[in-house]
Amino acid sequence: MQDKLTLMIPGPTPVPETVLKAMGRHPIGHRSGEFQAIVRRTTEQLKWLHQTSSDVLVITGSGTAAMEAGMINTLSRGDKVLCGDNGKFGERWVKVARAYGLEVNVVTAEWGQPLDPEAFRTALEADTEKQIKAVVLTHSETSTGVINDLETIARYVKAHGTALTIADCVTSLGASNVPMDAWGLDVVASGSQKGYMLPPGLSFVAMSDRAWAAYATSDLPKFYLDLGPYRKTAAKDSNPFTPAVNLYFGLEAALDMMQKEGLEAIFARHERHRAAAQAGMEAIGLPLFAATGHGSPAITAVAPEGLDAELLRKTVKEKFDILLAGGQDHLKGKVFRIGHLGYVCDRDVLTAVSAIEATLHSLGLHKGTMGAGVAATSAALG
Amino acid sequence: MQDKLTLMIPGPTPVPETVLKAMGRHPIGHRSGEFQAIVRRTTEQLKWLHQTSSDVLVITGSGTAAMEAGMINTLSRGDKVLCGDNGKFGERWVKVARAYGLEVNVVTAEWGQPLDPEAFRTALEADTEKQIKAVVLTHSETSTGVINDLETIARYVKAHGTALTIADCVTSLGASNVPMDAWGLDVVASGSQKGYMLPPGLSFVAMSDRAWAAYATSDLPKFYLDLGPYRKTAAKDSNPFTPAVNLYFGLEAALDMMQKEGLEAIFARHERHRAAAQAGMEAIGLPLFAATGHGSPAITAVAPEGLDAELLRKTVKEKFDILLAGGQDHLKGKVFRIGHLGYVCDRDVLTAVSAIEATLHSLGLHKGTMGAGVAATSAALG
Repeated sequence: MQDKLTLMIPGPTPVPETVLKAMGRHPIGHRSGEFQAIVRRTTEQLKWLHQTSSDVLVITGSGTAAMEAGMINTLSRGDKVLCGDNGKFGERWVKVARAYGLEVNVVTAEWGQPLDPEAFRTALEADTEKQIKAVVLTHSETSTGVINDLETIARYVKAHGTALTIADCVTSLGASNVPMDAWGLDVVASGSQKGYMLPPGLSFVAMSDRAWAAYATSDLPKFYLDLGPYRKTAAKDSNPFTPAVNLYFGLEAALDMMQKEGLEAIFARHERHRAAAQAGMEAIGLPLFAATGHGSPAITAVAPEGLDAELLRKTVKEKFDILLAGGQDHLKGKVFRIGHLGYVCDRDVLTAVSAIEATLHSLGLHKGTMGAGVAATSAALG
Repeated sequence: MQDKLTLMIPGPTPVPETVLKAMGRHPIGHRSGEFQAIVRRTTEQLKWLHQTSSDVLVITGSGTAAMEAGMINTLSRGDKVLCGDNGKFGERWVKVARAYGLEVNVVTAEWGQPLDPEAFRTALEADTEKQIKAVVLTHSETSTGVINDLETIARYVKAHGTALTIADCVTSLGASNVPMDAWGLDVVASGSQKGYMLPPGLSFVAMSDRAWAAYATSDLPKFYLDLGPYRKTAAKDSNPFTPAVNLYFGLEAALDMMQKEGLEAIFARHERHRAAAQAGMEAIGLPLFAATGHGSPAITAVAPEGLDAELLRKTVKEKFDILLAGGQDHLKGKVFRIGHLGYVCDRDVLTAVSAIEATLHSLGLHKGTMGAGVAATSAALG
């Protein structure tokens, strides 16, 4: 039905009317006092969201731009980095590192499995000559619905003494606890179309003092993604290049909403939705793709056996106007993913499970008791 | 007065209600068929605007991102480039080239003067060993209101035989004729908050076949700005990274409006506004900053003598809610700039001149006959 589509993909995520309305204003001059006030306010809000006193800088671009910026501003030609790769995004940071001529060692895990923190510890402890300049990893791996144990890995990096932790928190920030300072993260990258409840177009990179110290000697070439000018202009509540002004209007409104809800409530809501989506899928006999206990609060990946995940996904869209995400790369047709990230309430999760259950039933593929999924989801929502 | 501000700066420029409304929709999935249809349609529209059959790619970022992409995708380490520098943006491309370790020769002209095409011809003809890989220049220099003779310079580059023409058309495209194919331009970079009548956040880079041939051997490191994946996904009506979906909605609406108006009418309108703004300023005794005959159809820079340009600019804003641009860098306080780029009608130009004239009068600084500016502007508008 026209304009009825509900997004339950891991980005773009649904956007509140308040935010859309804020974005619908006429643009203002990006060098005006009025815009500086917005930059000042959102910078404080972003620090709150990142639980940090470090700089949080805003780049007009996608989450990949923010993550690349974090890497190329803290590393130098030939530096050795340790990358975690257990999905499409982990894979991507390996590619970025190689594109800039870094020496990449990779800690891998199968898609669906979490990265093993002990593999990082072993590699870091073996590096007695302190050759490893950074550990790069994805917190919530959007392609598989796995959340990696960033806290423990960051602790091992700290014990190493010199390496930085560069974390892709694109689908974890605003969904899951990412206390940048408490965990000692050096770079945290994220994107607007995720937990921020905004359309895509802005990305964010937070940099610790240690990251800035590395910036001072970084020799990788960059201009648009050179964070130095971003920091310098941020100190004057401004930006080095014309920013996406209307998305900034939305950012202020969205962060307002998040502050009213509170970090603890936001994390509890995402955790409840993870549990509810998982319970619903298990109750209707659809196996979870992420290893038990490692499901992301942002997204639940489901690997139905004996049926085409794409057929299920398309039928849910046609019948119920709910957009689920498909599997990426080799998981296409084998996995579908329920995004429950950002502006998602209990009703949305209950509805998604109901629609999946009803679709299975209509396709003659529901194997258990009809309603079992909704019952389990409802119970998990409490 | 609240929300009454009219933008007459060279970006962000005013945005039509139709475009704001289009942007106010809920985002849709960027991998959906519905979004692919928008990418397909806007790609055709962008080719129309660029008067080209080459690829026009869309990057979420500022105009600088597009220009940097054009340079780093066609050049390699140590390449010699000839950069034109007669203002803040010319200066910027020299910085980008140096940031990537290119060997930069610079053709300069004083701020306010156009680049001399003969200086390019001489340098290119002297390059018998074909060491110059590209000529990089700004078409409409936003900082000074000068339009450079891109057509002639591009002809000299063509005569060189191997160098590419990489043109910053950020404030010329959609205001002035930029027939990419007819002029033989290899890279054309632009940004959404200018002639496109959109808020900032999208940028555009068009690449000729010769530019793509250079891409094949380019060895400068890049990932987010690597145009290869943009081209590959554009062939499937898609994007390599999550694009600013809501700005795409606006892009389609804005290009629709531009197609209805027609290229010739758009160029004639901007030319009329240039003439009208110039006539108005001269009639009230405010000298133009750009050399006679070289004023940009996008922006008129004015260098008032014996009065503080910032005082005038601020008073116009306070009294009449019109935002003019100030001078950049060493021109601050010496120059103000009237943006007449994008969604600007005759009324806007008449109003701006009236407001400047009335402000001068109220400050006791109007030296001629009150109303002379409006009269001259009105006559030039026809």
